[in-house]
Amino acid sequence: MATQDAAIIETAHATADAARRAILPYFRRADLATENKDASGFDPVTEADRAAEQAMRAVLQQRRPGDGIIGEEFGNTPGQSGITWVLDPIDGTRGFMSGTPTWGVLVAAARDGVPIFGIVDQPYIGERFWGGFGQAAMHGPMGARDLAVRGDRPLDQSVLFTTFPELGTTREAAAFAEVARLVKLTRYGMDCYAYALLAAGQIDLVIEAGLSNYDIQAPMAVIEAAGGIVTNWQGGPAHQGGRVIAAAGRQQHDAALAILSRAP
Amino acid sequence: MATQDAAIIETAHATADAARRAILPYFRRADLATENKDASGFDPVTEADRAAEQAMRAVLQQRRPGDGIIGEEFGNTPGQSGITWVLDPIDGTRGFMSGTPTWGVLVAAARDGVPIFGIVDQPYIGERFWGGFGQAAMHGPMGARDLAVRGDRPLDQSVLFTTFPELGTTREAAAFAEVARLVKLTRYGMDCYAYALLAAGQIDLVIEAGLSNYDIQAPMAVIEAAGGIVTNWQGGPAHQGGRVIAAAGRQQHDAALAILSRAP
Repeated sequence: MATQDAAIIETAHATADAARRAILPYFRRADLATENKDASGFDPVTEADRAAEQAMRAVLQQRRPGDGIIGEEFGNTPGQSGITWVLDPIDGTRGFMSGTPTWGVLVAAARDGVPIFGIVDQPYIGERFWGGFGQAAMHGPMGARDLAVRGDRPLDQSVLFTTFPELGTTREAAAFAEVARLVKLTRYGMDCYAYALLAAGQIDLVIEAGLSNYDIQAPMAVIEAAGGIVTNWQGGPAHQGGRVIAAAGRQQHDAALAILSRAP
Repeated sequence: MATQDAAIIETAHATADAARRAILPYFRRADLATENKDASGFDPVTEADRAAEQAMRAVLQQRRPGDGIIGEEFGNTPGQSGITWVLDPIDGTRGFMSGTPTWGVLVAAARDGVPIFGIVDQPYIGERFWGGFGQAAMHGPMGARDLAVRGDRPLDQSVLFTTFPELGTTREAAAFAEVARLVKLTRYGMDCYAYALLAAGQIDLVIEAGLSNYDIQAPMAVIEAAGGIVTNWQGGPAHQGGRVIAAAGRQQHDAALAILSRAP
């Protein structure tokens, strides 16, 4: 592995470590302060979210001052190196606020906007999934292992995940529901953890809509490194977010896309 | 604490420990054998489910041969002591099959059919919630702490959980949806873990339907010990399963019951 690749991997892990340390003291605290950053909906921003992004930015600015940073909480910091870090300190804030163990810290390193290394970290369980530069692996309560998607399956044998049954717009929800009717099992509520399960060979499809780039770049890097496919609902690039489908194999991807691509 | 109560607590923990040991070697195994025990739907029974219930029964039969046992997999074993153990080795088999960390081992001790002590255990996270005989506590990755529900809240400030958006019958689903429209946030997919979150003061309501006695007795004991309320949709006893609502306070319970109790 090239020295510069190893440096990115090391920095990515250090960044996720910093987020873990910053977030865990807030998790399941009874007096957790929240505020509503979107007057039209429920999207709590916690002190943990901000503390974690600040901690992550501090690591990056110390180790790699020439890189750019895009973060959910504190916006864009341009860089000069060609590498941009894409951070979501707590993906799944609603899950976090409810005490579930399925939110995660997302860290991606992108070159020219395309993710080349990513980490999905679940601090409470102590579980980390990462991928890029020829690696795809995880470490958790049962130790370490390599990640690999489960491969091709027909839709009627596939397990589908999404965070909310009320997916995106009415038209997006209708397209999702059409896929959901054809699969073996649909489950909800897993936040970014669903992408980790796909990379780990446990499930077949994740379908979401309304994503931002910081929601998808880290999971995308992990899943692609594990042999999976991540595109938008037209089969094109997904790294800018929006409507996203992740698949464990070409067969389930094609079958789901045939439906999703018709959504207006 | 009376000696006989302490003996029940100790046995309950030993039973959950045995289930943990039996189940974890199967979790996220790529070649997990499954079969469909219900020709009309998707309800996989794993080898893990059976191995765990056998291990739990072995502990109980050795320590407390006079007690009865009701288990999901191997049915009823009558006893003579007045104490019956109510076991669900893996609550949330679909979650287990998908690799999620929200399934659980449920162990309850019941006297005359009513749970007096319960454990909700999540083996992968290494997290255990228990309650009864004046105790309500948990132990997990961040250590030990007492459990207490969050108390009264109006419905529009409440967080509601259920496992599936497609709850029970059409009429049950409609009643659930009516409550869901009035709460601050509804989330899905957590299996028995939702009951643990309620006991831990993280959420306000869990509403389910079509439960068996072994699905609810352990969560019920934990939640009641933590100060919460568990009833059926008419406000009556829930320990036989069926339509169940668990609440963190009287206020949210009453407001949800006003809707649910009208479901035909």
